[in-house]
Amino acid sequence: MEKWRATSNLRRSLKSILNRQLSSVSEFRYLNEKRSCQSSFNLIRDCKSLGQVNAIQHRCFSSASTLVQRNPSFSTLNSDDISYFKGLLGEKSVIQDEDRLETVNTDWMHKYKGSSKLLLLPRSTEEVAQILRYCNSRCLAVVPQGGNTGLVGGSVPVFDEVIVNVSSMKNIISFDKVSGILVCEAGCILENLISFLDNQGFIMPLDLGAKGSCQIGGNVSTNAGGLRLVRYGSLHENVLGLEAVLANGDVLDMLGTLRKDNTGYDLKHLFIGSEGSLGIVTKVSILTPPKLSSVNIAFLACNDYSSCQKLLMEAKRKLGEILSAFEFLDTEAMNLVLHQFDGVRNPLPASMHNFYILIETTGSDESYNRYLY
Amino acid sequence: MEKWRATSNLRRSLKSILNRQLSSVSEFRYLNEKRSCQSSFNLIRDCKSLGQVNAIQHRCFSSASTLVQRNPSFSTLNSDDISYFKGLLGEKSVIQDEDRLETVNTDWMHKYKGSSKLLLLPRSTEEVAQILRYCNSRCLAVVPQGGNTGLVGGSVPVFDEVIVNVSSMKNIISFDKVSGILVCEAGCILENLISFLDNQGFIMPLDLGAKGSCQIGGNVSTNAGGLRLVRYGSLHENVLGLEAVLANGDVLDMLGTLRKDNTGYDLKHLFIGSEGSLGIVTKVSILTPPKLSSVNIAFLACNDYSSCQKLLMEAKRKLGEILSAFEFLDTEAMNLVLHQFDGVRNPLPASMHNFYILIETTGSDESYNRYLY
Repeated sequence: MEKWRATSNLRRSLKSILNRQLSSVSEFRYLNEKRSCQSSFNLIRDCKSLGQVNAIQHRCFSSASTLVQRNPSFSTLNSDDISYFKGLLGEKSVIQDEDRLETVNTDWMHKYKGSSKLLLLPRSTEEVAQILRYCNSRCLAVVPQGGNTGLVGGSVPVFDEVIVNVSSMKNIISFDKVSGILVCEAGCILENLISFLDNQGFIMPLDLGAKGSCQIGGNVSTNAGGLRLVRYGSLHENVLGLEAVLANGDVLDMLGTLRKDNTGYDLKHLFIGSEGSLGIVTKVSILTPPKLSSVNIAFLACNDYSSCQKLLMEAKRKLGEILSAFEFLDTEAMNLVLHQFDGVRNPLPASMHNFYILIETTGSDESYNRYLY
Repeated sequence: MEKWRATSNLRRSLKSILNRQLSSVSEFRYLNEKRSCQSSFNLIRDCKSLGQVNAIQHRCFSSASTLVQRNPSFSTLNSDDISYFKGLLGEKSVIQDEDRLETVNTDWMHKYKGSSKLLLLPRSTEEVAQILRYCNSRCLAVVPQGGNTGLVGGSVPVFDEVIVNVSSMKNIISFDKVSGILVCEAGCILENLISFLDNQGFIMPLDLGAKGSCQIGGNVSTNAGGLRLVRYGSLHENVLGLEAVLANGDVLDMLGTLRKDNTGYDLKHLFIGSEGSLGIVTKVSILTPPKLSSVNIAFLACNDYSSCQKLLMEAKRKLGEILSAFEFLDTEAMNLVLHQFDGVRNPLPASMHNFYILIETTGSDESYNRYLY
């Protein structure tokens, strides 16, 4: 009964999100059209996406940002707004300090820079909901932000959007050692989750360079890949459920922990990789694999691309169950690494090879894993 | 460029499907409301779903079917319709024969029975599109059907829907031995795909009892699970792309073959497990794992449930990379099996145990797999 009620609610919610949100998504390319303020959450972000699309198309000729104009139907912040947020979140979670705003207005690559005047740090789903409800009613544009480690400028404002940063939401809600299911808040830093799980004898199915500062909510919203994709797949495969807050403040509870939940449409997948355009992810449940004891690495060279493909096939077949990473470099990438990092050397003989392959295996038995090599 | 255009088209299409289709989904519980005929595809099916929901709620008291009434805004078939379909598909693919209709009107469990007067057997996506375009314009209700092996009555009509059965669409379109990606039509029988892949040195990530007659399009539409779920996950994890025809005949091409495609919303997931309510799946691309050489099975007994849980944890940890199935039976299930099947015996000593566990491993090296036991 409870399940069916939840599903039915989900369907109602889906209808309302999609009817509203997609009206802006589909208008994606038509910046000059007048759009409803109800989709304030997406509007400026869509402009940015458009900028990025155009940047790809014309990247040699002009800066994308020159094509994007702030939509005048958005309001600008006033002192009443600030008072409202201070009343809701407390002084410390409403940031107007210029130095801190400089950081959150700038993307990791320093390629994009917004001019937001306000950073909000909610501590709970309810606070996120109240922020969005208020912004929606006031027609204030919003940009969701996690660890701000993305490389495509998705986590910083284009103009003066209010930044909602979930980094204060960093509680681990539960971990089930039998099923390996972790439920946590969106602001948990990936490395902290990796350490937590390590103590429990489990690993995160996701590992990437930015793990020291990226947050799981952002990982899910961008469908981050990383080093373990070959073995454990994308986040579509490992995220069992999530909770998200929509632009109007409605909370969508899809925080299931079943590996295969066939009740109704599997809506969480729409949010995975949607870059925050459908809502702010506030909680996540993830299936985590047990930690295995033996890790081995091999580094090989190939002379042609088809040999690399053959090697991948052989690795999948021979190392099938223990293969955990298969990374590919060409000579150019190798030279870049050798020139950029002091003390790094090519472990293979000096003669030039065209391609390099890094293979990692993870298994439960060291002697066997070595034997397979 | 091409990719972005595809994504933009997808978004436009998504808006139009969801705006239209979800208008009926949200009305799910309000049978007596007048609904637009544009959503003809879903309408009778929604009634059936409602019947099923109520059946769960009241299953001890009454038959669900008594609660469902045919929506009078649907047309009934006439001779012009039949002529149109014969002109489109040819005489042989337009079935009015009573015996054949009896079979496709009845579900595998013989619990549900429709009264469709017409079975159509399209051979291509274009034919499916033309059928649906026509039915939509004529306001004829439709039920999609694959192998008709489902156990919940989802693949048979409730009233007089036109049955669109995709069993004539059974071509394997491509198979890439390097990536293990299979692209095929929706009507391919699962066992045929298993045999095809076996010859190539690969396996389907999906295996279930109905494999001799179920079809891959139906598997995807119902998010079929099966025996390999523990190792290879659900179809959300293995289906890389699909093609579907919407109620109005529009073809949605999401037949990508990238394992991680982050362009736009990942719409295919909405179709996986949506039971045909959003469209008819016509083509599928699936990631298939390589066939491994060693398969072993163990059958164990446990006295209490917590021991079963401990065993699962140990199996995941110790057999981690080779564990391929972990099935659970209680005494009641075991007795049922022993009484129903001649010649089946409990392989464990006669004393009664409360729980039984079947563990299967699949790996690339026989001696190692045996050693792990």
